[in-house]
Amino acid sequence: MFINAIASYLPEQVVTNAYFQELNGLTDEWIVERTGIRERRKASSEENTHTMALEAAKKITESLPYDISEVDLIVGATYTPHDNIFTLGHALQHALNISEIPVVTISSACSSLLNAIEIVQGYFAMNKASKALVVVSEHNTAYNNEDDTKAGHLWGDGAAVLSISKEKAGAQNWEIKDLITGGAANVGKASEGVTLKPLHRGLIMPYGKDVFINACTYMPKVSKQVMEKNGLTVEDISFVIPHQANYRITKNVAGTLGVPDEKMISNIHYLGNTGCAGCAIAMDENKGKFEKGNKIIVTVFGGGYSYGAMLVEI
Amino acid sequence: MFINAIASYLPEQVVTNAYFQELNGLTDEWIVERTGIRERRKASSEENTHTMALEAAKKITESLPYDISEVDLIVGATYTPHDNIFTLGHALQHALNISEIPVVTISSACSSLLNAIEIVQGYFAMNKASKALVVVSEHNTAYNNEDDTKAGHLWGDGAAVLSISKEKAGAQNWEIKDLITGGAANVGKASEGVTLKPLHRGLIMPYGKDVFINACTYMPKVSKQVMEKNGLTVEDISFVIPHQANYRITKNVAGTLGVPDEKMISNIHYLGNTGCAGCAIAMDENKGKFEKGNKIIVTVFGGGYSYGAMLVEI
Repeated sequence: MFINAIASYLPEQVVTNAYFQELNGLTDEWIVERTGIRERRKASSEENTHTMALEAAKKITESLPYDISEVDLIVGATYTPHDNIFTLGHALQHALNISEIPVVTISSACSSLLNAIEIVQGYFAMNKASKALVVVSEHNTAYNNEDDTKAGHLWGDGAAVLSISKEKAGAQNWEIKDLITGGAANVGKASEGVTLKPLHRGLIMPYGKDVFINACTYMPKVSKQVMEKNGLTVEDISFVIPHQANYRITKNVAGTLGVPDEKMISNIHYLGNTGCAGCAIAMDENKGKFEKGNKIIVTVFGGGYSYGAMLVEI
Repeated sequence: MFINAIASYLPEQVVTNAYFQELNGLTDEWIVERTGIRERRKASSEENTHTMALEAAKKITESLPYDISEVDLIVGATYTPHDNIFTLGHALQHALNISEIPVVTISSACSSLLNAIEIVQGYFAMNKASKALVVVSEHNTAYNNEDDTKAGHLWGDGAAVLSISKEKAGAQNWEIKDLITGGAANVGKASEGVTLKPLHRGLIMPYGKDVFINACTYMPKVSKQVMEKNGLTVEDISFVIPHQANYRITKNVAGTLGVPDEKMISNIHYLGNTGCAGCAIAMDENKGKFEKGNKIIVTVFGGGYSYGAMLVEI
């Protein structure tokens, strides 16, 4: 299974830490020390989960190694939906005018990128699809409460699209060598650590410490699992792209894995937590840096305590 | 792939058409003529998408042919979420205390039941799971606008859980012989026919006629596809369970397929449209009626214009 194209979109508006200092007194120094975040992007009032995804899709259609009409599966992922019925996946199908293919949109919170790719892997295994689009898009600022001094400053908006084919196609062929996902909803504060109840209090993180501890436990654990399963050690890995939640988590994951900081890819500093889109945006941003033969671990962790790791060979 | 147990839950409160007559002048006769609906269930203020699903799950654990700890995959489906981060699937994992298994929650609107089962089929094909729970739950009344005279009277609440195993297990072994899903988001008013924008206008159906026409087109079309693919004619089919949206759609589907009304299974009259839970609730309600060897078509259609058909042999 190969990632044959990738594209991302970020809204123009930049919100710096100065905004939160004025709003609720959190200083730049305080935010950077605890999260690494200096600024994040915010969708305009004309934008939403769908429009951001469609902007990324426009870019990917330019680099697809086959005609868009050959796409035979779309999997969307978001926990900040614009529409739960005409979903993110449907919006992409609609905009790209692709007829009569399976379309579904998922959430396993910030870990959905890997769940979505695993669903594609399942369709490929059944021979029900061979050319899929995975679209990840988060409109965090639509659901976020900026006044929340615990987590209001963490979130940013963004989207990405990946084109994934069963066989090699075109020039960019990043092979997905392995992929493991799991859930630990029965652990710690999984049911309330970070939640988004659309009808109630929006996006909140009342138990950030518990989320932190479990993110720092499960990302290294599942990354090691995928390395061991493939006969690799940490020395074989060129880059690790962890879920882009908090730079302290990234540092902690690096420490546990024994990976030097320069191998850890991060966009948290200027994008904040872009949910399930974060790792995909980072993959797109860094594609010029990756070299043939590089082995990359993408590892995710989300509220509800889902997690996963994917081994990609460039 | 076998459905080895099924259970459902309906909230206690019954809302009759008299309620809507008082609220906005729609008479019982007018509603029944256009939809077949006489009453629907409404979750209490203590209930939500999660609690209803957990009630169904309590019942299914009594009839599971293996210990609940052997479950190795959970797929939730809802377009009326209680929480997008600690999702429906996570809530089930949490309540059942099952460790470290893939969990994901999906929406392809009212057609999600079959998309969820197809995702399970993919995990089985990859040998990444062999014993799955599919949970469908809709809290329509939480998002519905009762004052909407176009669609406010259509919706009801309910949930169901299906236990699906790769191999036969226990006494009830309904074999899923085939399953096709598709999406037609590029057709007609798919992008606006029926929508649920959590941040805006809730659950609305401004283009009911277009939804009706496409439901009546795609459900028979995909049902015929699945019959032809399996060398069956409509005479071989004992029962058809269509998406429970509107009894006029059910009658129309029956007419197009050439299936007598008595083979069409319906709970619309007393449950209204229970979204992606409707067909699963109907399967549970009618399990005493099904006889060994019966072939059943379950066919669905949802906003965003996803559709599907599943052939089940009892």
